[in-house]
Amino acid sequence: MLDKYERPKREEKEALKAEIKELRARLIEQQQLVRDSKLPILVLVEGWAAAGKGSLINELISEIDPRFYNVTSPQVLPEAQERYPFLYQYAAAIPENGKIMFYDSGWMEGAVRKYLHRDITSSQYKKRIRAVNEFERQLRDAGYIVLKLFLHIGEKEQRKRLTELKEDYETEWRVSEDDLWQHREYKTFLETYDGFMEKTDDLIRWHVLDGENGRQAVRDALKLLVKKIDKALSEGKYNGEPFKEDFPLLTMPKLSEVDLSPVIEEEEYKEELKRLQKRLGELHNVIYHKRIPVILCYEGWDAAGKGGNIRRIAYPLDPRGFDVKPIASPEPHELNRQYLWRFWTRLPRSGHICIFDRTWYGRVMVERLEGFCTEKDWQRAYNEINEFERQLTDWGAVVLKFWMHIDQDEQLARFTARQETPEKQWKITEEDWRNREKWPQYEVAVDEMIAKTSTKNAPWYIIESNDKKYARIRTLRIVVDALEKACEEHIERGLS
Amino acid sequence: MLDKYERPKREEKEALKAEIKELRARLIEQQQLVRDSKLPILVLVEGWAAAGKGSLINELISEIDPRFYNVTSPQVLPEAQERYPFLYQYAAAIPENGKIMFYDSGWMEGAVRKYLHRDITSSQYKKRIRAVNEFERQLRDAGYIVLKLFLHIGEKEQRKRLTELKEDYETEWRVSEDDLWQHREYKTFLETYDGFMEKTDDLIRWHVLDGENGRQAVRDALKLLVKKIDKALSEGKYNGEPFKEDFPLLTMPKLSEVDLSPVIEEEEYKEELKRLQKRLGELHNVIYHKRIPVILCYEGWDAAGKGGNIRRIAYPLDPRGFDVKPIASPEPHELNRQYLWRFWTRLPRSGHICIFDRTWYGRVMVERLEGFCTEKDWQRAYNEINEFERQLTDWGAVVLKFWMHIDQDEQLARFTARQETPEKQWKITEEDWRNREKWPQYEVAVDEMIAKTSTKNAPWYIIESNDKKYARIRTLRIVVDALEKACEEHIERGLS
Repeated sequence: MLDKYERPKREEKEALKAEIKELRARLIEQQQLVRDSKLPILVLVEGWAAAGKGSLINELISEIDPRFYNVTSPQVLPEAQERYPFLYQYAAAIPENGKIMFYDSGWMEGAVRKYLHRDITSSQYKKRIRAVNEFERQLRDAGYIVLKLFLHIGEKEQRKRLTELKEDYETEWRVSEDDLWQHREYKTFLETYDGFMEKTDDLIRWHVLDGENGRQAVRDALKLLVKKIDKALSEGKYNGEPFKEDFPLLTMPKLSEVDLSPVIEEEEYKEELKRLQKRLGELHNVIYHKRIPVILCYEGWDAAGKGGNIRRIAYPLDPRGFDVKPIASPEPHELNRQYLWRFWTRLPRSGHICIFDRTWYGRVMVERLEGFCTEKDWQRAYNEINEFERQLTDWGAVVLKFWMHIDQDEQLARFTARQETPEKQWKITEEDWRNREKWPQYEVAVDEMIAKTSTKNAPWYIIESNDKKYARIRTLRIVVDALEKACEEHIERGLS
Repeated sequence: MLDKYERPKREEKEALKAEIKELRARLIEQQQLVRDSKLPILVLVEGWAAAGKGSLINELISEIDPRFYNVTSPQVLPEAQERYPFLYQYAAAIPENGKIMFYDSGWMEGAVRKYLHRDITSSQYKKRIRAVNEFERQLRDAGYIVLKLFLHIGEKEQRKRLTELKEDYETEWRVSEDDLWQHREYKTFLETYDGFMEKTDDLIRWHVLDGENGRQAVRDALKLLVKKIDKALSEGKYNGEPFKEDFPLLTMPKLSEVDLSPVIEEEEYKEELKRLQKRLGELHNVIYHKRIPVILCYEGWDAAGKGGNIRRIAYPLDPRGFDVKPIASPEPHELNRQYLWRFWTRLPRSGHICIFDRTWYGRVMVERLEGFCTEKDWQRAYNEINEFERQLTDWGAVVLKFWMHIDQDEQLARFTARQETPEKQWKITEEDWRNREKWPQYEVAVDEMIAKTSTKNAPWYIIESNDKKYARIRTLRIVVDALEKACEEHIERGLS
């Protein structure tokens, strides 16, 4: 892409000026239409140090209503200081419906710089490229307009600009060590940028702009943006077809095949609870110290005992190092973004344990059954979730998913008990009874969900919960075993 | 407080256990009532290193529904790495209505540790104590239950615990250099903690708990919490009376006294715009480099030209270093917290310029006039805002506030023009016409607002905006002058 790049001829100044003026007026006209049709627009501006990314973005926004756009400038932290998964900061910054977000460099710079710094291995780098393709596809399928620009300048021009910046007292500090290093390694960067763009060009195309002709670059960027918006406005918001990668899946039983009879004796329960909680507390120290992220996902029938189960896990943990995230219906600002956004922004720092009390699986259960999303949306979600979870485990996270399973008789008994106990009445609502009527439909959805998303890296566990105490011990054991294993592997891989 | 502290006698184990069980049951009963009455509860747990703050919090939460509480563990960053005002992380973490937030150490530790590290001067330390008192009062007045605990252990006990932690491989890493330093300086810390508590004990009292008797501390904390909640439930959510500190105020004209006739010639406008924007761009470099935070607040009549004015300021700025924050009506999760929360969480990092397109002053204008808050709420807000802004300028921020002023005839002309220009129609809504009918009421509110909140550190500027171009040049000049001054002062104070 870059090695075959032919710099366009310098164009006439007056004509360019008129063209830019015209395009800006078009963009202003589009503003309101974009808002009305709730189109989210993401403009990624990548490019060389000193290529003028900042100035380009400034020219693009100069006449747009400030309520209509935002600019984000993601930092590239050294990997040792990084506490979140690779895509975290990019995913957290996606625009909401009806707005434009400009990325002043983004995931390409993040991946390439760390790779060339040897901060990540080439196998990690490959995984990041895969993650980028997944991320971009998920955005496109959710109706996002994604425009990817690369601002290109030659080696000579970069030297000239860096030298000028360094010579002026007021701008000297803007030239970082990393910029100078990039310049020394210009050819290596050229090849790597080029390779990255080739590997991420299939779904959403890259556009190389000439950073040596600032006005032309502005005109070209405006033209591309206006065209993309026009196309989206005339075609309507895109809603992607389900995409299916063959994730290696574990064979899982259907809910109806699960034997719910297991119970535990009171004495064994007490002993095991004490032993497992003690061990979990010890492991939490190691997890925290070694910065292993842990994500525990709780789903299950109403009244299956999620709350009590979570409390038994949380009890031995140091509150500095864990968090319970209860997931309710999405708020307006959450509904205004791709559905995984509200989970991306709730991810724990590395070394922390995060317990999700209900999760992103709402998409393929309640949202599917209540019609809160389209059929394409939830059909797509199985694969999107598998990708999301793989990105989490690639980051090094332990991801465990629990389906708290009871039968209909047990649920009825618990509902009735709740209604009859004054201090528990708040736990039972009309909605619980309505959901109960839809048990068969939910069972179909849950069976499909477990079958399609029980990957080796992020497995489902169906927890027999007719006996609450049995369920608690079983969950604790699974968590303790998984953490033991993660700590051992961590030591084996020499990461400690 | 600590120097007069007499350690309570160790109590009988079985009786304590029963008491704790009873109190936990009470807390569980209170859960739903707290939720229903939308009470927000903040529990601050301060104390010595190795005093057992984490374990105490764990015992407090062990039976609470996870949807009902959260734990935050604020970090104390070295001042040189600190990019936000002192109270930022504590203010960002306040609980929402109906929930409990536990602070695993908080503003006392933040202030004391930095002071003893000589990271801040004693004058800064005093300002932080003042800010803490303001912060706590604001929370109390907004109906927050605030419980402040200090977990106390003696010097000998601390030595024993730190030694034990260090001797065990799995816990060794938990003892930080700072902990050991605190232990060496035990007496200095004792005096400083003590002094801090004395100076922040008037509004909301401190409770010292015995960290050497873990179970007793748990019982005492539970007792205090249950009692506070009971009191609040029976008295109803507190709504504080207006409190008035005598901030030194600038003498400001009433809106009706402002001469709106000034205009600017086209030629002068173009020259000045160019010159001022160039200078602003240069100053932005300095601001960014010296990490001076800048907060520009825009308020004004509908159609007064805020958007165009903001664009002229933003144009020369590097998008990496500024952000426009449009303020719309609060979302549900924002309404569920003290009203300044949504502004705390939008503050810029130091070195960045943040332009608020409408601000926290909505409280004393639209919220006052439309009855979105109580009279006490908006009456209190003048002082609360003065305190908030002083905390910002104490942090080193430049805070400038603009009232874009036009007269009713000019507004009518602009409304009509908007309605007649197709691509501008979206800018005018039914609400604008309704607001226009309330011009006299708004004028009273605006006059009162400007009179009561034009402090020397965060002044209001009434911008004559009948001529938009005149208004832009005037605003640009004010910003440029203020930034020139801030850069000079910064150099003079030897902070560069």
